[in-house]
Amino acid sequence: MLKATRQQTKRHNLRLVMRTIYNDGGISRADIARVTGLTRPTVSRIVAKLIDERYVVETGQGPSAGGKRPTLLDVNLSSHHLLAIDLGSSEFRGAVVNLQGEILQRLTIPTGGQRGDEALDLVRDLLRNLASMANAPILGIGIGTPGLTNPDDGVIREAVNLGWSKLPLADLLSKEFQQPIYVANDSHMAALGEYTFGANREDRDLIVIKIGQGIGSGIILDGQPYYGDGYGAGEIGHVVVEDNGRKCSCGNYGCLETTTSTRAIIQAAHTQAESSPDSLLGPASSLTWENIVSALKAGDPAACNVVQEAGKFLGVAIANLVATLNIHRIVIAGRVHQLGETFLNSALNEARHRTLPSMVADTKVSYSDLGSDIVILGSSAMVLKQELGVI
Amino acid sequence: MLKATRQQTKRHNLRLVMRTIYNDGGISRADIARVTGLTRPTVSRIVAKLIDERYVVETGQGPSAGGKRPTLLDVNLSSHHLLAIDLGSSEFRGAVVNLQGEILQRLTIPTGGQRGDEALDLVRDLLRNLASMANAPILGIGIGTPGLTNPDDGVIREAVNLGWSKLPLADLLSKEFQQPIYVANDSHMAALGEYTFGANREDRDLIVIKIGQGIGSGIILDGQPYYGDGYGAGEIGHVVVEDNGRKCSCGNYGCLETTTSTRAIIQAAHTQAESSPDSLLGPASSLTWENIVSALKAGDPAACNVVQEAGKFLGVAIANLVATLNIHRIVIAGRVHQLGETFLNSALNEARHRTLPSMVADTKVSYSDLGSDIVILGSSAMVLKQELGVI
Repeated sequence: MLKATRQQTKRHNLRLVMRTIYNDGGISRADIARVTGLTRPTVSRIVAKLIDERYVVETGQGPSAGGKRPTLLDVNLSSHHLLAIDLGSSEFRGAVVNLQGEILQRLTIPTGGQRGDEALDLVRDLLRNLASMANAPILGIGIGTPGLTNPDDGVIREAVNLGWSKLPLADLLSKEFQQPIYVANDSHMAALGEYTFGANREDRDLIVIKIGQGIGSGIILDGQPYYGDGYGAGEIGHVVVEDNGRKCSCGNYGCLETTTSTRAIIQAAHTQAESSPDSLLGPASSLTWENIVSALKAGDPAACNVVQEAGKFLGVAIANLVATLNIHRIVIAGRVHQLGETFLNSALNEARHRTLPSMVADTKVSYSDLGSDIVILGSSAMVLKQELGVI
Repeated sequence: MLKATRQQTKRHNLRLVMRTIYNDGGISRADIARVTGLTRPTVSRIVAKLIDERYVVETGQGPSAGGKRPTLLDVNLSSHHLLAIDLGSSEFRGAVVNLQGEILQRLTIPTGGQRGDEALDLVRDLLRNLASMANAPILGIGIGTPGLTNPDDGVIREAVNLGWSKLPLADLLSKEFQQPIYVANDSHMAALGEYTFGANREDRDLIVIKIGQGIGSGIILDGQPYYGDGYGAGEIGHVVVEDNGRKCSCGNYGCLETTTSTRAIIQAAHTQAESSPDSLLGPASSLTWENIVSALKAGDPAACNVVQEAGKFLGVAIANLVATLNIHRIVIAGRVHQLGETFLNSALNEARHRTLPSMVADTKVSYSDLGSDIVILGSSAMVLKQELGVI
């Protein structure tokens, strides 16, 4: 027990020093000792190791505080790269990312509905190509995937759309790539991305609702992703929000995905366009997402109606989240941000009628700034967090 | 900083030793040192202090392991008492409790709808009487109250039924009683009670749904109560579960309290009795909770219908909780346990149709064994946890 404790302490101290340099770039060994409470010799030993492994560089000398001018230390951001991929979109997306979470290169592979082993082969292709694009040693690989996923062992319990069941993705890929691999649900990764790189970094608790062809949410509690007992926390896409609603892929009727996913919104606009041939939505037969967005911006009542209706059911889901978790910051991710205030206000208005209005009033709902990179950024954050203890 | 750390370490070690004796009663100083990793002199010093303060007693001698027979230590359960009260029922309830959470004496004060200062006076009366009943030094006072309550400072932000707003209850009472006072929402206390003293102590996460005249829930995550950013986590009583439902005291329509509280169930039974004069519910004019329970037990279809309908809306709330938190253990508290399987099965059946059936299948919903003591036991657990670090 004591030995494990000593190793844990060493690891803890290493991460503490790395985090200090990461957060307070341009810091001296003496200041690291002061900030962390570690002794000077301990800090010097750890810094030597970090310089040896190229994570840290000496960048110059700071002003003298009376004696010798101190040598300043910074994280060597280009010393290592990491690979991050997002399997939760209609195409597989990947990126090479530096140690600061900056995306250096992107790669996208269109998917043609591949499932099972074929989908797995696509993931391998994507990673091989990304690995060849990286021009620094790779720190690790982060993967956001749809489906119930155990982030501790990287096993995907069930990802219906990809036809994966009990798939040990991390183990399978680490054999080929010989890298630390971190896998989690894409909405959980999105929440970590927003927490780490989003506009609201002061909030220790937040919820990200990710709306695309599917809908899921990720929860951050006290700075950590909350997964739930079965890794299904935040699986709000299949909660019934409309009584007697449309049949959902899950077998139930009126789930949030049947009212508020991008697919459902396009479908509702299609129906609306058929009954309102004069609307700016244009002809139902060729209607696209972009038509909805431009008709909405032009103030078209039919488009507005479609968006408000979708927002209303989002409000049902928000009411449930607010009542259960009472988290004050809810962030909406996905291209629904193009639906602007019309969508958000409809959601908030409905939420106020569906739970204690004072609790809704204390809740701020906004769109993420991270765009379609949110899962990739979250997957990067996971690697940085696990491998270096930074962020 | 270093000084604070040393004090924290001392406090940590004291609690560690106390917890070890509490959990493994009949343990020697040597074994405490072995289990905790503390040195023998440190353990001896801490034990001397605990004996001096009467928390711990020497109870005899254990078998020799070769040398001198070791002296065994136990917690002196009757050395201190604590007071716990529950303000969340139709009457104010209180108890004197020993260090093991055993209720030694109970006291109940009927309330006649007192609010504001009058209600506060009743609380003082209750505590004064309880204090006079205790025949050991008092360790602390735990209070479960309705309303949004900050457990860190003991301020009740808003308790509508008691007419309390921004009431610093802990501060007000500690002046008179000169004791550490812990105040939290009654559903949050109920969850802590179930976690600490209930039948499912192996679960690190659980939800307690407390159903009485009001409805609330408390959430335990990784062994700790989860309060939410505004202390309103689990406030599910005012989530709309029935579209176009009855008007609720909160101003909205169709909240869970309008369908599933004991008051709502009695009201529904009343309506049912009027339209089914032959049912075993008996005459509507004199209908009580007990009539519903006995008619249900006798298989009366009208009573069964009322209970199933109330259970159905509980199922809506359970679906939301399961989708948001994916916690596998949900415990129902309150006298609705008298509605048995009819109520629970209706809820589970509805929940399965309102979120991913596999997530509901992994969730166990059962009644609490703790009966009407659950809030008092939770309030006791809070005092033991905060004051002694045990439990």
